[in-house]
Amino acid sequence: MKIHIVNPNTTTSMTQKIAAAARAVAGPGVEIVADQPEMGPVSIEGYYDEAFAIPGMLARIRAAEADGVAGHVIACFDDTGLDAARSICTTPVIGIGEAGYHVASLIAGRFSVVTTLARSIPVLEHNLHRYGLAARCGRVRAADVEVLALEDPASGARAKISDQIEAAKREDRAEAIVLGCAGMADLAAELSRTHGLPVVDGVASAVALVEALARLGAQTSKLGGYAAPLKKTYTGAFARFAP
Amino acid sequence: MKIHIVNPNTTTSMTQKIAAAARAVAGPGVEIVADQPEMGPVSIEGYYDEAFAIPGMLARIRAAEADGVAGHVIACFDDTGLDAARSICTTPVIGIGEAGYHVASLIAGRFSVVTTLARSIPVLEHNLHRYGLAARCGRVRAADVEVLALEDPASGARAKISDQIEAAKREDRAEAIVLGCAGMADLAAELSRTHGLPVVDGVASAVALVEALARLGAQTSKLGGYAAPLKKTYTGAFARFAP
Amino acid sequence: MKIHIVNPNTTTSMTQKIAAAARAVAGPGVEIVADQPEMGPVSIEGYYDEAFAIPGMLARIRAAEADGVAGHVIACFDDTGLDAARSICTTPVIGIGEAGYHVASLIAGRFSVVTTLARSIPVLEHNLHRYGLAARCGRVRAADVEVLALEDPASGARAKISDQIEAAKREDRAEAIVLGCAGMADLAAELSRTHGLPVVDGVASAVALVEALARLGAQTSKLGGYAAPLKKTYTGAFARFAP
Amino acid sequence: MKIHIVNPNTTTSMTQKIAAAARAVAGPGVEIVADQPEMGPVSIEGYYDEAFAIPGMLARIRAAEADGVAGHVIACFDDTGLDAARSICTTPVIGIGEAGYHVASLIAGRFSVVTTLARSIPVLEHNLHRYGLAARCGRVRAADVEVLALEDPASGARAKISDQIEAAKREDRAEAIVLGCAGMADLAAELSRTHGLPVVDGVASAVALVEALARLGAQTSKLGGYAAPLKKTYTGAFARFAP
Amino acid sequence: MKIHIVNPNTTTSMTQKIAAAARAVAGPGVEIVADQPEMGPVSIEGYYDEAFAIPGMLARIRAAEADGVAGHVIACFDDTGLDAARSICTTPVIGIGEAGYHVASLIAGRFSVVTTLARSIPVLEHNLHRYGLAARCGRVRAADVEVLALEDPASGARAKISDQIEAAKREDRAEAIVLGCAGMADLAAELSRTHGLPVVDGVASAVALVEALARLGAQTSKLGGYAAPLKKTYTGAFARFAP
Amino acid sequence: MKIHIVNPNTTTSMTQKIAAAARAVAGPGVEIVADQPEMGPVSIEGYYDEAFAIPGMLARIRAAEADGVAGHVIACFDDTGLDAARSICTTPVIGIGEAGYHVASLIAGRFSVVTTLARSIPVLEHNLHRYGLAARCGRVRAADVEVLALEDPASGARAKISDQIEAAKREDRAEAIVLGCAGMADLAAELSRTHGLPVVDGVASAVALVEALARLGAQTSKLGGYAAPLKKTYTGAFARFAP
Repeated sequence: MKIHIVNPNTTTSMTQKIAAAARAVAGPGVEIVADQPEMGPVSIEGYYDEAFAIPGMLARIRAAEADGVAGHVIACFDDTGLDAARSICTTPVIGIGEAGYHVASLIAGRFSVVTTLARSIPVLEHNLHRYGLAARCGRVRAADVEVLALEDPASGARAKISDQIEAAKREDRAEAIVLGCAGMADLAAELSRTHGLPVVDGVASAVALVEALARLGAQTSKLGGYAAPLKKTYTGAFARFAP
Repeated sequence: MKIHIVNPNTTTSMTQKIAAAARAVAGPGVEIVADQPEMGPVSIEGYYDEAFAIPGMLARIRAAEADGVAGHVIACFDDTGLDAARSICTTPVIGIGEAGYHVASLIAGRFSVVTTLARSIPVLEHNLHRYGLAARCGRVRAADVEVLALEDPASGARAKISDQIEAAKREDRAEAIVLGCAGMADLAAELSRTHGLPVVDGVASAVALVEALARLGAQTSKLGGYAAPLKKTYTGAFARFAP
Repeated sequence: MKIHIVNPNTTTSMTQKIAAAARAVAGPGVEIVADQPEMGPVSIEGYYDEAFAIPGMLARIRAAEADGVAGHVIACFDDTGLDAARSICTTPVIGIGEAGYHVASLIAGRFSVVTTLARSIPVLEHNLHRYGLAARCGRVRAADVEVLALEDPASGARAKISDQIEAAKREDRAEAIVLGCAGMADLAAELSRTHGLPVVDGVASAVALVEALARLGAQTSKLGGYAAPLKKTYTGAFARFAP
Repeated sequence: MKIHIVNPNTTTSMTQKIAAAARAVAGPGVEIVADQPEMGPVSIEGYYDEAFAIPGMLARIRAAEADGVAGHVIACFDDTGLDAARSICTTPVIGIGEAGYHVASLIAGRFSVVTTLARSIPVLEHNLHRYGLAARCGRVRAADVEVLALEDPASGARAKISDQIEAAKREDRAEAIVLGCAGMADLAAELSRTHGLPVVDGVASAVALVEALARLGAQTSKLGGYAAPLKKTYTGAFARFAP
Repeated sequence: MKIHIVNPNTTTSMTQKIAAAARAVAGPGVEIVADQPEMGPVSIEGYYDEAFAIPGMLARIRAAEADGVAGHVIACFDDTGLDAARSICTTPVIGIGEAGYHVASLIAGRFSVVTTLARSIPVLEHNLHRYGLAARCGRVRAADVEVLALEDPASGARAKISDQIEAAKREDRAEAIVLGCAGMADLAAELSRTHGLPVVDGVASAVALVEALARLGAQTSKLGGYAAPLKKTYTGAFARFAP
Repeated sequence: MKIHIVNPNTTTSMTQKIAAAARAVAGPGVEIVADQPEMGPVSIEGYYDEAFAIPGMLARIRAAEADGVAGHVIACFDDTGLDAARSICTTPVIGIGEAGYHVASLIAGRFSVVTTLARSIPVLEHNLHRYGLAARCGRVRAADVEVLALEDPASGARAKISDQIEAAKREDRAEAIVLGCAGMADLAAELSRTHGLPVVDGVASAVALVEALARLGAQTSKLGGYAAPLKKTYTGAFARFAP
């Protein structure tokens, strides 16, 4: 069975890192297919970047769905375009933010999130609210690290994340941590050992969950908001994306 | 003072209808500037259409902001791309869904929404939840009318909307109605007389509110989620949209 | 068009200050009619004062409504008697607390309130809860300043308010501030410049919103809680206030 | 020990009925002192009546508190003026609506309320929300009976209330009923037998609870919203009510 | 009338202390019957202890109900087994946590809880959430004291509790305190005097409330979740506990 | 890797049915170990049965944890004893109710639950509330079928469940269904085909999720409520269960 994981930004090195994290957790017989949009921002930091990441990402999801994959992972912690993606799939689609929250909810009474920049906090809070899991979240914290700085060992990113985890234990009564960026996937195991609580990586979580759903035969509902798009004309440069 | 109103779909007749509704309510000395994206869906019915309406709409908002307008109205009841639009503006930006909910909240204890298709209900419910006004809303109802059918007098749309208003009074204890589509702007006054309760049109509401904000000198906060996008590269066909 | 603004306390200097703030924001052709009750407390600080401010205030609203004003503003941040006022009006009625919260919600994701005394915090929290906008509010803060001290430049009131605004930015992640007393109306613009975020004054906000509603032709719903009072006898000294 | 019960309307026959209901439940050694305002509406049906019932009622509570009663009951299901009353008392003060909700919450997982007129529903919903017990309430229902009609056996009031109880069992999954008017105090026991579930009367509940609080030595907190009113001038006809 | 109070742990000295606290508040003519399970943990600190306290406690409640008591108090602040107890009683059953929250809600706008160990916080938060009173609670705080250390004057428990009360006033805006353990029953009056706000003891509160319910004739609803258990076989060592 | 699934009731035929459902979904290399308590009720229908199911079930979980299983499934839809079980495990523990809600939340915007008896509804509603997923649930419905009747083809159980699914689509706007009893595990696939929406079985969902967590190396947090029980004495017949 093939699992499709799409990095919604256009930075190839992040796609590769995400693919590696996904392959590390994939079960026997599961092939990871990773790709990225052909157009859009090199990283997603806030609402504007998100808006321009989604069209190219949806094109990737549509193509992979047509290729017969068993499910999709959206590898941005904002869960960029998740609802639109579900509307064009019958296979399951999971965002890595959503996956991290669900996994943390199954192993701890209360979790906190540590993400990159403060400007991302409102997006994550909105998502938590919609998923219903806001009540399980102590606080969404920003480590004040830009996404691409996570690729740079000299940025001090790891120490800043560590500081927020300690604050979450002390101030939020957090029993687990969800790392709030796909670029943090490689830090989870070590941070868990250092801080003595579960540290959840969304990429691994999403791969494991979508594989679980696929094995269950669970399909995205086509009633309500995820109904397939109505046939209609798209004009101008977007004509080729029409449903 | 100029108010910019953008129809996020690419149907010119709807843009004209929206512009007329806006001009009918604009105060003395207010000029309405109406436009639509150069690319995207001809109507917005669900999450997928929304994703492809936003890039072209943001380009229009960015251009109008550079032109010195005093504020913007997003004339789709889904409040398509509202957060991203705010992040690129210092002037106020209001969605017509949001505007309708706020106006109804100021004149009634509880309102219901009558929109077009059932697939739009979850989007509107999410928005109400985020705005905080879900507690004021009895129910979001669909009249089962496609957006473009509203342009066609033979579609029976008006009667279907009327039926839902009666049901909202009876079953939801609604004290006011918010019409859930820009294409319904011309029906509000008559429906209000017929059903004996305030019937709120989002287009007029948004124009009046954005004009009020502009006169107050109220500007979109640049702290938190609406901070200006960081400078970065956008790749491929979206390079020209980079912040 | 005439807008009626009532100061629910009986301090004439505050009525004048409120009227001036209202006139500063009123649009072309709008006349501000300001008054105050003939009986009641000289300032409203807590539930007991509120109870004795309302009868006289309702008499003013009833008289102004009979005079044909286009709408009413209740110029106490507690939104004193707002529901009762709506039940005797068909024109729109807005409280300045309510107005401040709505305006802040339209230009920022999250706001905090800075009011006068700690004893007023529960009233404001109840109101935010009822309006639905509690979810948008970081915290209601008290500057520990009595209402009438705002009239006295030597009271240090401005510095105390400023301190709370800084705390709100740092601790509540506030993206905007709502000033929680009609007597603070003259401080908003300067505080906004000093602290680099929108600082919303309820008096100006309410005038702009009620004018917007009036231009929209929006009327208070007469279904449900705001239905006109039933005809009945009031006994004793209140006989003259009977519906 | 004396318990003060105030009927906030000025209808003497209701005061007598309420006093009788209170005496029927009062424990050994408890004296019930019942009175009513010297001015105000003959019944409370909506926000406007409420505003004019409170001043006279607060005067009665202040006098009884000075007389050394052990606690107060406000015998209107709207819990008219409850917060203001608490601010002038150190003894406990309970509203009969509040009392009914608390008692029902202690003997059933979910209750519904049956009140008189639809216009009262929003007031009761606000109260439930504030008390925190909205989550325990299935629905607030109106029997469509005016308050004073409860005094008239020919009004058919009892049958209308009975119909709503049956609907609450069937539609709301109600496990208990709270009767939503002081004038229904004499119906509870019989309705409970007829419908096979607990039917809670607020008057009896409030007397029992305030007596329990008094015996516990529980006093109204003077921190926060219930702090004693600040000394200040009240002007005009209300001068005599100044704190 | 007899009131049954069961200490769900098996420490006899705590049962005696609880019985004394109950007798101190019981009204004239009320006999307190106190007992404890014949098997189970010597103190309840967390979910596992709770599971093994409930069977023996339910046996005591069943026996006392058969003996004709007028109501039951469960004297563990976790409200251990409260729902199951209600399902086997027609008389009222109250937990001391629940009782403390209700009493505090009737005399203060907002309360905080001070309990023993941090591991108990989630249980109490769940209970507050279910009862609906979470909105009235500022915070659940742990004094970091083991239950049985409360019996030991040298443990410094009183000072640790006092520190948390001060923190609750300062940080949570608490207007009242609920003591979160049956073993703290003897501290309430002194802590109230020291800290100048109501300090509520659950044991006394529960006795007073259950006596109030009994006098009202209020019975546990047998509709819904508290319906009597269906007749069925229990196997093995639990055969004797079958309904 | 071994997954332990415990049927909390003592009916062997249900344990076998549950084990078969678990084996049908288990991945390659996963061994299912199924058992049931040595004492307790033959089925769990309400709070009282639950209380007597937990001790024997916890003994099974403790033994399996000592045997080195990779995780546990509690196969009662009430998620009987889930919190206590987590406190004695470092491996993940999932309840089948919880699992069903999480799976449905990942493939649909809104789901309804169809369970056996009305008396179970409050338990499930409490769980949904605690997990945070109540906001995703349209309604918890009872098919009015006893648990053991599900084993009897002549009981008409399947048709009653089917009726509730249709009602959930029509009245609750449900986009997916969660079957609310372990004994319904064999009906999910057929009901999904018949009704044209995802029908989720909790047993299969829980096995897939716990396997996913085990592969991720996710462990139950030992901070907060799931901290290991403190060493202490259990008295009487429960001495052997002491931590």
